[in-house]
Amino acid sequence: MSKPNIVILGAGYGGMITTVKLQKSLLAEEANITLINKHDYHYQSTWLHENAAGTTHHDRTRIPIQDIIHREKVQFIQDTVCAIDPEEKKVKLSDGEVSYDILVIGLGFEAATFGIEGLAEHSFTINSINSARLIREHIEYNFALYNNEQRKKQARLNIVVGGGGLTGVEFLGELANRVPELCREYDIDKAMVRIINIEGASTILPNFESQLVEYAINSLEARGIELITDASIKECQKDHVIYEKDGIEMEVPTMTTVWAAGVQANEIVQQSGFQTTNGKVKVRKDMRTPEYDDVFVVGDCALVMDEQTNRPVPATAQIAVQEASLVAQNIKALVKGRELQKFEPNLKGTVASLGEDDAVGVVFNNRKLYGWKAMIMKQLIENRYLYMLGGFKLMLKKGKFNLFV
Amino acid sequence: MSKPNIVILGAGYGGMITTVKLQKSLLAEEANITLINKHDYHYQSTWLHENAAGTTHHDRTRIPIQDIIHREKVQFIQDTVCAIDPEEKKVKLSDGEVSYDILVIGLGFEAATFGIEGLAEHSFTINSINSARLIREHIEYNFALYNNEQRKKQARLNIVVGGGGLTGVEFLGELANRVPELCREYDIDKAMVRIINIEGASTILPNFESQLVEYAINSLEARGIELITDASIKECQKDHVIYEKDGIEMEVPTMTTVWAAGVQANEIVQQSGFQTTNGKVKVRKDMRTPEYDDVFVVGDCALVMDEQTNRPVPATAQIAVQEASLVAQNIKALVKGRELQKFEPNLKGTVASLGEDDAVGVVFNNRKLYGWKAMIMKQLIENRYLYMLGGFKLMLKKGKFNLFV
Repeated sequence: MSKPNIVILGAGYGGMITTVKLQKSLLAEEANITLINKHDYHYQSTWLHENAAGTTHHDRTRIPIQDIIHREKVQFIQDTVCAIDPEEKKVKLSDGEVSYDILVIGLGFEAATFGIEGLAEHSFTINSINSARLIREHIEYNFALYNNEQRKKQARLNIVVGGGGLTGVEFLGELANRVPELCREYDIDKAMVRIINIEGASTILPNFESQLVEYAINSLEARGIELITDASIKECQKDHVIYEKDGIEMEVPTMTTVWAAGVQANEIVQQSGFQTTNGKVKVRKDMRTPEYDDVFVVGDCALVMDEQTNRPVPATAQIAVQEASLVAQNIKALVKGRELQKFEPNLKGTVASLGEDDAVGVVFNNRKLYGWKAMIMKQLIENRYLYMLGGFKLMLKKGKFNLFV
Repeated sequence: MSKPNIVILGAGYGGMITTVKLQKSLLAEEANITLINKHDYHYQSTWLHENAAGTTHHDRTRIPIQDIIHREKVQFIQDTVCAIDPEEKKVKLSDGEVSYDILVIGLGFEAATFGIEGLAEHSFTINSINSARLIREHIEYNFALYNNEQRKKQARLNIVVGGGGLTGVEFLGELANRVPELCREYDIDKAMVRIINIEGASTILPNFESQLVEYAINSLEARGIELITDASIKECQKDHVIYEKDGIEMEVPTMTTVWAAGVQANEIVQQSGFQTTNGKVKVRKDMRTPEYDDVFVVGDCALVMDEQTNRPVPATAQIAVQEASLVAQNIKALVKGRELQKFEPNLKGTVASLGEDDAVGVVFNNRKLYGWKAMIMKQLIENRYLYMLGGFKLMLKKGKFNLFV
């Protein structure tokens, strides 16, 4: 291949790390690298829950793409991907078309609402800077409206979070810290505010060990969060949500339902004709699609099976970053005519934050962490990522050092 | 009268100064003083436009009543006044009833919408802490929604201000400073935002001299404000406003119409059976109602005629404070059995702020002031009021010294 066009779709964890690794390992005369993204910034979706709760400003969570890419090596196009044509090796954008020799699909996730009535129209999801700051403003607006209405509406003060997985729990932890501030700001009695979590499994954080779960439950309940398990949301409307538990339907008045109970791969992948399983491409060991030797998939759009457990590897930021490193390496191999390597996930553990200085997690060979120690670990993971993305300077600029100062 | 019950309704400029003056001039054994107000704070309504635009936090504009009154002399009741019965000398509250020997009505103003279709339901007014922070949040919420909708709505970014008098112009001046910040916060192109003023007269600030008006027009237009004069709002709906100019009707898409073109006295005065002119009580020279020797009226609920011009004295904060000083003096005279004095308004001039460090005004025998000099004068007037209300300490705490630091 003489100076191939490498096109990377999406500037999430997978797309960004692929781009950064490629701009380091390939010379400008070896390949044309193009990164395409809807926004001119990258954001760390694992921190969006803080922007949504209003505890951290969204500018802390996003990084201008131009600050990370080397302009002499990478061309950046700000546009929305509409479709991929893998036969013609073309990507259709809102405002044009791009041809590729090698493609990386890192188009991320979107909310999956499983056909639940009204959920797509009336619930919010924490999946972008735009949606996160809208949730922040939506909550504030309802608190502001509360004291302006003759007939006070409890629905304005109730916040329902659907799903008690990682995102749901982390958002609840931030809300628990934020709500007292909001009550002061809008002259509202804190006792009037309800924060309700509805989880389908028999516990929150179903993938965590029971000791960690217990710690998390105590932390959240002590701050007034109501945890309802073994329950499922049946319907969501503008001013209420209906859930079912033990065969009984309950209606909760709320203007704010945040849906954190399901994600799916970006629909464009399936719509573009790739073979998919639950919307994801079950990639080969070298992270390429089964059908095309020139198309790689990373992050939420890729389905990677764990050879030992024969179960899908979780689609976390950690795994997306690992995949992207391999994809960059394999693209270089493809360009140089060398052999491609296979992906081997390295699960380093997970930490769930529970608020400003509280968290639970498992790291390094099942070591359990609680409280501020777990939070420091979460920050270290974050800072390591930033170092990988933009070096020491970016880590200092955007890193999390709350507990050290 | 042996230890009369003096009851003051409303903790606006008039009610607060009456209370403060009375607690200074009467001994605890000479009278029972009761102040009744809806909120447990006093606010300076002349600065609410800054809270509404989001340029100053509302906590800068309000003062806890308990910080000002002497608890051993004044009883404070937080409740809403429902009706006054001047025959029985009783005030009906939401949650009880209070008897008085001497009453001061300082219940302030509310928006007058003149029957314009949809205005009461769909427009906002700058008349309380609650309404001001709702405007701030409403604007932010619409900016946040803008980038979250597939079909972008210009109505979310257009802000229409009805009325180009003092409040309207001061709000426009703050908006002009605030909107660029909002555009950065929500990733919106500033050129997309329109701020439109609709004024019925042939100019904004119709009571100001032409040189000052010209200065104000230049200041606002240079920052992108659109001033439409000789025009009147005909209808206001959730997503648009209709105005008429030169016999032609124009529809402007907007989710945010702020009505600053008309106020009226609190309706309770008229509903309680007092003789009113346009809802106000045309008081005697000593500030008492024509019918009752034990009822005083201050501020927006009082109509005071200027003896020289035979026109009503403007219902400004400045005049309310002067009235309150006299009312306190006359109440003391009433208690002591002395002669009551008559009110003589002293018009010291007016300053209209145009934003952070810009203003126009006339002070002391028609001296015109522009720019930061006018703004310093506005701050001095404000600080003088705070000194009168709560002494040096309150002035230092809440005073405006932006230009001096």
